[in-house]
Amino acid sequence: MPVIPVNTPSATYNVTIAPNLLPTLHSRLRKLNPGKPFRPFIITSPNIWSLWSKPFLASFKEPPTVLFHPAGERHKRMASVESLAQQLSTAGADRDALLLAFGGGVIGDITGFLAAIYMRGIRYVQIPTTLLAQVDSSIGGKTGVNLATGKNLIGSFHHPQAVFADTDLLRTLPPAELRAGLQESIKAGVIYDAKLFRYMEQNAEAILSTKRNADPTPLAKVVAASVRVKAEVVSQDEKESGLRMILNFGHTIGHAIEAATNYKQLLHGEAVAWGSIAALSVAVARNTISEKDANRIANLILRYGPLPTFKATAEKLVSLTSRDKKNRSGIRSFILPTAIGKVEIVRNVTEPELLAATNAMLTLMRQR
Amino acid sequence: MPVIPVNTPSATYNVTIAPNLLPTLHSRLRKLNPGKPFRPFIITSPNIWSLWSKPFLASFKEPPTVLFHPAGERHKRMASVESLAQQLSTAGADRDALLLAFGGGVIGDITGFLAAIYMRGIRYVQIPTTLLAQVDSSIGGKTGVNLATGKNLIGSFHHPQAVFADTDLLRTLPPAELRAGLQESIKAGVIYDAKLFRYMEQNAEAILSTKRNADPTPLAKVVAASVRVKAEVVSQDEKESGLRMILNFGHTIGHAIEAATNYKQLLHGEAVAWGSIAALSVAVARNTISEKDANRIANLILRYGPLPTFKATAEKLVSLTSRDKKNRSGIRSFILPTAIGKVEIVRNVTEPELLAATNAMLTLMRQR
Ligand SMILES: NC(=O)c1ccc[n+]([C@@H]2O[C@H](COP(=O)([O-])OP(=O)(O)OC[C@H]3O[C@@H](n4cnc5c(N)ncnc54)[C@H](O)[C@@H]3O)[C@@H](O)[C@H]2O)c1
Ligand SMILES: NC(=O)c1ccc[n+]([C@@H]2O[C@H](COP(=O)([O-])OP(=O)(O)OC[C@H]3O[C@@H](n4cnc5c(N)ncnc54)[C@H](O)[C@@H]3O)[C@@H](O)[C@H]2O)c1
Ligand SMILES: [Zn+2]
Ligand SMILES: [Zn+2]
Repeated sequence: MPVIPVNTPSATYNVTIAPNLLPTLHSRLRKLNPGKPFRPFIITSPNIWSLWSKPFLASFKEPPTVLFHPAGERHKRMASVESLAQQLSTAGADRDALLLAFGGGVIGDITGFLAAIYMRGIRYVQIPTTLLAQVDSSIGGKTGVNLATGKNLIGSFHHPQAVFADTDLLRTLPPAELRAGLQESIKAGVIYDAKLFRYMEQNAEAILSTKRNADPTPLAKVVAASVRVKAEVVSQDEKESGLRMILNFGHTIGHAIEAATNYKQLLHGEAVAWGSIAALSVAVARNTISEKDANRIANLILRYGPLPTFKATAEKLVSLTSRDKKNRSGIRSFILPTAIGKVEIVRNVTEPELLAATNAMLTLMRQR
Repeated sequence: MPVIPVNTPSATYNVTIAPNLLPTLHSRLRKLNPGKPFRPFIITSPNIWSLWSKPFLASFKEPPTVLFHPAGERHKRMASVESLAQQLSTAGADRDALLLAFGGGVIGDITGFLAAIYMRGIRYVQIPTTLLAQVDSSIGGKTGVNLATGKNLIGSFHHPQAVFADTDLLRTLPPAELRAGLQESIKAGVIYDAKLFRYMEQNAEAILSTKRNADPTPLAKVVAASVRVKAEVVSQDEKESGLRMILNFGHTIGHAIEAATNYKQLLHGEAVAWGSIAALSVAVARNTISEKDANRIANLILRYGPLPTFKATAEKLVSLTSRDKKNRSGIRSFILPTAIGKVEIVRNVTEPELLAATNAMLTLMRQR
């Protein structure tokens, strides 16, 4: 069973990836804080709970208190955090409380943030239920909520005590969510792990299979390899002052697409997929990557589609990139692949370059 | 001019205490981040701004953006933080923004928390305008807001880059606010600094004088000495795992009194004053302090009154102490003075002891 360490200046913890993990949760959680009081509180959504509460609770003698948060990005807001905090306080949660985030990235981000600020910081554990959450959002300590003026503008760095990724949970995921999450795995391959990239090229059908009796191993392998990339990158640069920025490959234009479509038309991974194609186009124009590698990357991204189309002009998208939270005093960092598994961070991508690349991406989209 | 360092594992900064500091603010702020972009945003209340904006702005060529937050404890809530964050974002604040908290403890706590969570953490500076904020709340990195279910239940540790305490600001403070703030200085003397205690005994009249032409030196001396106590304690125990708890002298019952009176009848310092008298009574009953020292402490507290009376039973107050945020799994720490300038932390104060001490305090209150 893959157990992948995350090792940062402010926290050290493991990501455990395996099928059938939920039924052994209780003893795994108990081992995290030996000799300390055990006061777990589950934060989840009604739909996830109705699907998976049974195996989740199987190992608990006393079921923990469950607090519900409605599914959906639009509830990732301060008001939800306040309401959950109030419920915690009414339920008697003190500094020894342990929050269990059981859901996708939305539940994970909100629970992590709640843990960061409840009584100035309590412990929490991530039990991610979507592919995106298992390979990306549950790892690395970024937590937060949205403002009306932008996504993830409020938040904290606060690492979980552990991440338990039960790959069985992915069986009930809507297929589009699975495919969108796999775009982050492709990203992991592109920026850091040529072997993962190749595995995803060669085993696409098995990885994407949602047949009831499909072999779960290929997907679990991709999850583990993607987790390893994220864990290694975060361990080397916790606070995103350098290397961690490479995780933003495809995200500059990706975020602009999400903003332009009001976060409603595309899943995050789908927007990042289009954003990656645009970034690739900058790299090709600059000759930092060979046509051959660029084509392999674009083909793999499209292979894990279909990617939904959307309506927006290149001008609109590029103007939205200047509002990116990552910008500092107006300067924007950009991640360009140089080969499969390798990228560089550049700060001199110009607006005309971005416009041309975004137009090329939009043209490709219209041709399909 | 006293410049007192705070030195913790997560931050190092100075508290500068002097009259007439505001007119030199700009160059002091510029020096904090040499060579970096300077993007200040002021967070303040309308009443403070109308009194003090002129000297505040005197050294600025371009006035910074000012965001207003209404005065009053009841606005120290998540909704205010969200609204301020939204205003910051609309005004274009990015990770290089520098927040300037210009107000009492409410403004300081909310601005510090906003800085802690805006884009996962930006810089801020404290420019405290009340006595309580100058000697206590601006120092030490505790930031946060209230929930409907309790005070300061949401928050972060996030230190300012500097604290500038202009003692001239205290001239416009309502006299009751000044006296209530001085109760925290008495606390500083009781727990840590016998010399400060003696100075406050011997110079009460000069310290309390609000005459226009009064000598500002005695009060400024008390501010500096109190800051030194807080700075030294916090430097030795940033996260309140040990020594820092001594700052809670008088606060267990004090918080209960505030809760019992809905945070409306008494100022924080006044509630702490009554709480200190009750704590003293526990110490006397246990013989951990001499009657003589206990009387000196009680007399000094009352000398800096008048303390308003309130209605609550000892039973009610003691039951409210069990909800204290500092409790962990039901165990409550209690600070008892052993002499002037010395305290001990105990964990075995029983409910009957607390009841007796609270009744003694209530009796004293009724006799006056
Ligand atoms: N913190 C980070 O580092 C980080 C990184 C990337 C993304 N994110 C955040 O993650 C969020 C997106 O996460 P997401 O894609 O997991 O979305 P999500 O949490 O909204 O989940 C998607 C949908 O799937 C449902 N669902 C979850 N698990 C299921 C299961 N096992 N079976 C059936 N349905 C299930 C959810 O209820 C929801 O409707 C965004 O808010 C994004 O900002 C955070
Ligand atoms: N962070 C910490 O470590 C810490 C420590 C102690 C207290 N606190 C918090 O501090 C808060 C109380 O702070 P406070 O006592 O400063 O109250 P406050 O901030 O509410 O200020 C009291 C009143 O005085 C007014 N005022 C402020 N400066 C003035 C001036 N120079 N002239 C005239 N009026 C002025 C304010 O507008 C307000 O009406 C509480 O919320 C408490 O929880 C925090
Ligand atoms: Zn992403
Ligand atoms: Zn206090």
